[in-house]
Amino acid sequence: MVLGIGDDTAILEGKAGQQLLVTTDTLVSGIHFPEDTSPAAIGHKALAVNLSDIAAMGGKPGWFTLALTLPETDESWLQAFSASLHELARRYYVSLIGGDTTRGPLSITVTMIGTAPVGKAVTRNNATPGDVVFVTGSLGDAAMALYCLQNDADIDADIMARLRGSLDKPTPRIDEGMLLRNHAAAMIDISDGLSADLGHILSASSVGAELLTEQLPLSQDMLDAASQAGITADKRLQLALTGGDDYELCAVIPETQLGPLQTAWPSSLAPLTRIGKITTGSGLKLYEADGAPGTTIATGGYTHFHEKAN
Amino acid sequence: MVLGIGDDTAILEGKAGQQLLVTTDTLVSGIHFPEDTSPAAIGHKALAVNLSDIAAMGGKPGWFTLALTLPETDESWLQAFSASLHELARRYYVSLIGGDTTRGPLSITVTMIGTAPVGKAVTRNNATPGDVVFVTGSLGDAAMALYCLQNDADIDADIMARLRGSLDKPTPRIDEGMLLRNHAAAMIDISDGLSADLGHILSASSVGAELLTEQLPLSQDMLDAASQAGITADKRLQLALTGGDDYELCAVIPETQLGPLQTAWPSSLAPLTRIGKITTGSGLKLYEADGAPGTTIATGGYTHFHEKAN
Repeated sequence: MVLGIGDDTAILEGKAGQQLLVTTDTLVSGIHFPEDTSPAAIGHKALAVNLSDIAAMGGKPGWFTLALTLPETDESWLQAFSASLHELARRYYVSLIGGDTTRGPLSITVTMIGTAPVGKAVTRNNATPGDVVFVTGSLGDAAMALYCLQNDADIDADIMARLRGSLDKPTPRIDEGMLLRNHAAAMIDISDGLSADLGHILSASSVGAELLTEQLPLSQDMLDAASQAGITADKRLQLALTGGDDYELCAVIPETQLGPLQTAWPSSLAPLTRIGKITTGSGLKLYEADGAPGTTIATGGYTHFHEKAN
Repeated sequence: MVLGIGDDTAILEGKAGQQLLVTTDTLVSGIHFPEDTSPAAIGHKALAVNLSDIAAMGGKPGWFTLALTLPETDESWLQAFSASLHELARRYYVSLIGGDTTRGPLSITVTMIGTAPVGKAVTRNNATPGDVVFVTGSLGDAAMALYCLQNDADIDADIMARLRGSLDKPTPRIDEGMLLRNHAAAMIDISDGLSADLGHILSASSVGAELLTEQLPLSQDMLDAASQAGITADKRLQLALTGGDDYELCAVIPETQLGPLQTAWPSSLAPLTRIGKITTGSGLKLYEADGAPGTTIATGGYTHFHEKAN
């Protein structure tokens, strides 16, 4: 960075051989986070969801601008928001290069700029039949937290705190994305739920996919909470497939890259789970296990879940 | 641009020898524009204020992201907003590379990315005593429009329409900025009023300035409106100095560059008016004419206006 905040614009040095990745996301209170969300969680999440978009391209995040609209000047709110945002920024070495604070109903817009070597950014449109579908981490923790909050479910407090942590303070998969860019044909981050986001890859690549639902990585906390809240296996699966707010990566890996990827993946990164494969045709089909009858689901979001011959 | 909207991020090609300029601005209804402002004016202004920041660095605008928060889906509003925004975007060859539309109280955040050759961007901190202060266009038209609206002043409709045009649809001084970058020591765009914005240059450069108030460029519409509304000369001056929303450029030019600048300035650009000079010391002093007694004003914004020995 040549010049940070304090002039009409920031100045960044363009680098030969590097491409720039640019993304923007707005969080609005009551829509993107529950209204009782702490300022620390809001500060974290506003940055994390944008970092996650950079991760989904395999990029290295570099700089961000912050547009903050606040109903009133509340020093302690601002301090908690800011401390949390800057803690996450330091963790990924990203710098705030521009800001605008205005008065109005609470909303936060972050624009993030990252970099990737020319031609290395992973888009959505290169999945081909036979490729294998992976996800990082676990699915549905944030959705389970939201479900329990909205239904006032009686869950063990420690479990609830950890699930709420997944909802409020997601971990952007930056390091995972930068490794995956060497192997993946297509990649996306899971913000709207696996079925919707994998659906974007399928549409962009003009392919279909089959998932093995027993392979979907569910955390022990998610399973325990489901059991304590008396949630059916179908409902649990629905949360994992369509709940959103996971901020895990869904990556499509060509067969030839499976070995190299496995060798390259260090245990320090979030676990990578094989969940299915890319097929010809279109849309997403679910199988409980290899050879079991499949279920076709709408990839625009979860709309139904019933057995159907395929 | 390598990749536009439709993936996790846009991809831009970094160019050797170019620096990137990044700026972000939010407009909130009722604060940054009157609530009765047309969607076309809002679309124009949201882009124009960000273009103006790029102009203030002498940059060439390239790409922008748009985060739009709307209370409800209103197709005709969106269409008018969008048409006007894209018309201005086309005029300056800037591309929309990312967007996020959310539901909530009306606000618009644009982040603009521009470029300048390495070392050519004009910052605020290089003004030195003896340099000459210029502004483009005219001052106070937008402020006069707002004053007339707020005070229900009885102004000729054609005049009012043109002043309202200055308030609603400011012209970013992109071409002027790109020429001025070859000559200016410091530059800023006038969004908060000349005295506040020139004040930023003075603070950043640790210098003072003297302005000749009779030299401030006021448009015939502004003078006519002032006369029809029965506004005093002092009030008129106050609007021109502190009203804001001008989006003209204020440039500080070293003596040695005065000849080359005059030679280079084509008549197709907004007129450039010499209004004063940079001095040692600090703060802004106003003189009605050369040799007349001066008035010291607070540069943080207009706070008082009375004669004072200096």
